[in-house]
Amino acid sequence: MTYNLLKGKRGIIFGALDENSIAWKTALKVKEEGGSFTLTNAPIAMRMGKINELAKACNAEVIPADATSEQDLQNLFTKSMEVLGGKLDFVLHSIGMSPNVRKDKAYGDLNYDWFLKTLDISGVSFHKVLQTAEKTDAMNEWGSIVALTYIAAQRTFPDYSDMAQAKAVLESIARSYGYRFAKLKKVRVNTISQSPTKTTAGAGISGFDVFYDYAQMMSPLGNASAEDCAAYIVSLFSDLTRMVTMQNLMHDGGFSSTGITQDLIERLTK
Amino acid sequence: MTYNLLKGKRGIIFGALDENSIAWKTALKVKEEGGSFTLTNAPIAMRMGKINELAKACNAEVIPADATSEQDLQNLFTKSMEVLGGKLDFVLHSIGMSPNVRKDKAYGDLNYDWFLKTLDISGVSFHKVLQTAEKTDAMNEWGSIVALTYIAAQRTFPDYSDMAQAKAVLESIARSYGYRFAKLKKVRVNTISQSPTKTTAGAGISGFDVFYDYAQMMSPLGNASAEDCAAYIVSLFSDLTRMVTMQNLMHDGGFSSTGITQDLIERLTK
Amino acid sequence: MTYNLLKGKRGIIFGALDENSIAWKTALKVKEEGGSFTLTNAPIAMRMGKINELAKACNAEVIPADATSEQDLQNLFTKSMEVLGGKLDFVLHSIGMSPNVRKDKAYGDLNYDWFLKTLDISGVSFHKVLQTAEKTDAMNEWGSIVALTYIAAQRTFPDYSDMAQAKAVLESIARSYGYRFAKLKKVRVNTISQSPTKTTAGAGISGFDVFYDYAQMMSPLGNASAEDCAAYIVSLFSDLTRMVTMQNLMHDGGFSSTGITQDLIERLTK
Amino acid sequence: MTYNLLKGKRGIIFGALDENSIAWKTALKVKEEGGSFTLTNAPIAMRMGKINELAKACNAEVIPADATSEQDLQNLFTKSMEVLGGKLDFVLHSIGMSPNVRKDKAYGDLNYDWFLKTLDISGVSFHKVLQTAEKTDAMNEWGSIVALTYIAAQRTFPDYSDMAQAKAVLESIARSYGYRFAKLKKVRVNTISQSPTKTTAGAGISGFDVFYDYAQMMSPLGNASAEDCAAYIVSLFSDLTRMVTMQNLMHDGGFSSTGITQDLIERLTK
Repeated sequence: MTYNLLKGKRGIIFGALDENSIAWKTALKVKEEGGSFTLTNAPIAMRMGKINELAKACNAEVIPADATSEQDLQNLFTKSMEVLGGKLDFVLHSIGMSPNVRKDKAYGDLNYDWFLKTLDISGVSFHKVLQTAEKTDAMNEWGSIVALTYIAAQRTFPDYSDMAQAKAVLESIARSYGYRFAKLKKVRVNTISQSPTKTTAGAGISGFDVFYDYAQMMSPLGNASAEDCAAYIVSLFSDLTRMVTMQNLMHDGGFSSTGITQDLIERLTK
Repeated sequence: MTYNLLKGKRGIIFGALDENSIAWKTALKVKEEGGSFTLTNAPIAMRMGKINELAKACNAEVIPADATSEQDLQNLFTKSMEVLGGKLDFVLHSIGMSPNVRKDKAYGDLNYDWFLKTLDISGVSFHKVLQTAEKTDAMNEWGSIVALTYIAAQRTFPDYSDMAQAKAVLESIARSYGYRFAKLKKVRVNTISQSPTKTTAGAGISGFDVFYDYAQMMSPLGNASAEDCAAYIVSLFSDLTRMVTMQNLMHDGGFSSTGITQDLIERLTK
Repeated sequence: MTYNLLKGKRGIIFGALDENSIAWKTALKVKEEGGSFTLTNAPIAMRMGKINELAKACNAEVIPADATSEQDLQNLFTKSMEVLGGKLDFVLHSIGMSPNVRKDKAYGDLNYDWFLKTLDISGVSFHKVLQTAEKTDAMNEWGSIVALTYIAAQRTFPDYSDMAQAKAVLESIARSYGYRFAKLKKVRVNTISQSPTKTTAGAGISGFDVFYDYAQMMSPLGNASAEDCAAYIVSLFSDLTRMVTMQNLMHDGGFSSTGITQDLIERLTK
Repeated sequence: MTYNLLKGKRGIIFGALDENSIAWKTALKVKEEGGSFTLTNAPIAMRMGKINELAKACNAEVIPADATSEQDLQNLFTKSMEVLGGKLDFVLHSIGMSPNVRKDKAYGDLNYDWFLKTLDISGVSFHKVLQTAEKTDAMNEWGSIVALTYIAAQRTFPDYSDMAQAKAVLESIARSYGYRFAKLKKVRVNTISQSPTKTTAGAGISGFDVFYDYAQMMSPLGNASAEDCAAYIVSLFSDLTRMVTMQNLMHDGGFSSTGITQDLIERLTK
């Protein structure tokens, strides 16, 4: 079903790596709903992924950008307005990477250069995106900016390591910059705290399968899929949600409000 | 703009008193989006309000029900399915009343029969609605049930009195029954925590104007209006938000995440 | 170890049933720390329990009171001041009972007279205690009032049923009355959200053992015991915590901030 | 009043600059309660402050350390154990600095090298302290580690700028490392979210006076002072609070749970 919810709206979508990515599914869904956009990813991710395939399917231009580089971001926003023919209405930030997680460093043996890199790439990059959007005067009034996060910002999942801190930074930026952008341009800024999702990135975290299954058992509606998330993002980009801002929105089938479930009880009493 | 988001969906809308009501605006918006519904209110509220006017505009049937009466609710759900020609996809609960607030009792001098009445009418009634929906097998899979609440459930607003406790009950029921209904029928249950709204009921609370203005100053996007809320409710009734459940969703222009604003600073330093 | 933290302080302790009760352990600990108090419980609980044994050990008077009766509470506060020789510095509310849980009613088949009874006994009774304390002018400045609660107020534990709503009411009252009592008398009001505890009441809930074990696995420090809780209550009654008010304080070995643990992962992957 | 609550306990106190510092008041209070400790601060802060005066009053040794330097921290923990004659029972982290705030950069014009510095000094340094404590095997079982934070981590205070993100990191580290240290050594890790406090550092933030006064008006018990905070820290270092971990504890006279107050209403309606 399509509704034309984003007809005439323009934006930028970060982070589409391959067809498992939430950003990938979002691009397809936004397209269906009438939105136009540019796609972007870090040069290295672009080499590994298939973003050009997506770009073709969506009739979208790809503009490479390292989201930690102010210069790249400035180019991205400026070019996007040119390509799309006007200011923007939506932005999706879907970026996360931790060298400490990749190298399997224990949380009691972190490398601090890498820790700061995790924070920069996965958290501060969101501020850079927002500050660049402001400096290039890229947003239309009542625009909507969304970043993806995870409940590890609120509760400890040991394998998530310093990414928990990066997500805490990300969510905090949504509140701080959300205040600022609301005042300047009526633009709203929110984060979506998504179920564990079988993306190429997610699946790389050690022990992912166990906590995916655990989340499945502990979510009364089950885990939200990447497609579900894309649909939810569309609702947040649409004009139906104009007064929702500075929020961290749980999109998790009820996981965050569940203490225990019958499924888990049965599993534990077997 | 309309999108046909609720085409073919059926439901019940509680609590439309007059054209200032959130439920009234929601009814109009749901109609625009292709949904059909019955309207209901307590017999006494119906005498005071103009629900029949709304019913006419929406081509909807009115079925009176005291939301604290299991019998009335059973009649409401059964009749609604008959009238609408099938099971339901959405329900809006917008009900609140406190005798202690009405009679201006101090919070240190509450009447306890009235306190329990407040809890019954404004909180437990939501459980009765949900339990009746279950017992009459009234909900379609992937249906959506929403109740309206206020941030007084989290932070003290002295004039809100025992309504704070009623809203705490309401939000807790959304989590408890949300678990149950997810398991039974994939139905989601959420509350929307709405900005202070100039409804006939809201405006009756003593000191309403001051905290409306304060909320306005403390909400980066300003207070969300009844129309804004209706649009947000439509998004929660639509298929875009299927995996959001057991949540209390702030719809408040950013109020809940704001510690202080420049506007307030200026006001306080004058 | 004792510290004389409560030397010269007077209070009332509700809810000591037998030697497994948190209130029982608290009474012993408060005594050790130099506090004096009266003990109270509902007449029916007194018949079943051994409160007189405790009274003897603590050299405390027992004053029966049904915590839902304003008259009983007035008598309790008045008598307590007489017996103890002055106004009070602390109160512990440890009261909870749900007829729906006792009779094992499903959450989709609740009896609503019982639901309101659950709210009255387990939630509203806290307001009655506070309002009576105010009306009898029973509290000294900088006094401390604590009630015991459970994380089911935030997350769904299906077997906890309508007690979840009662705890939501209780915690909300702590915020609302905490505001009032702070202004009137500098008295602080807080709730402690305690680990599942093997009290006679707790152990009666169906499925208690499973969620006790689950909480144990999911709490990095393990479940907090009744003795631990008594010690924590002493810290909240002492002058060290004077500016903590209107809070719900997690006393749970870390459960509330834990998403998953290695122990649980191992259990689930066996 | 003193209670000997920390008799025989050893620790490290970071961040005592001058007699207005919370860390300074805490040192005095811990001393009174029988604890022994080393004092530390960054070399530059030591030059500006009067830590040696405090050291004398407490009979404590000063060991300079830049809290962002792993080497300095290793030296600090190792020396502290030598000086104090054994492993440690408590640590206070009271460190915060933002170059962006100092240079009065707007939140839409941040310098990103400085942003990362803010995160490193005010947030990641807490992880470095914890990791060093683990690597030097410095903590006794049931030890207690506390860091000071501010509610800007949850709600936007525009002048607080990137310090909001640093505090979000800090609080997240308390949860992540709290899990780890609980499992390893039964050590608890918490943050205290303190009222705005008239310290030399706090008072330097632009607009501090206004938000101090606002917080005063919005805190039913008034703002908690540095002395109040010292007393609360003592309770968290003591054996009375052993099962409290991974928590962010509001020490704010009720500010965090207050939506509006009569004082503010009067001020706004004047």
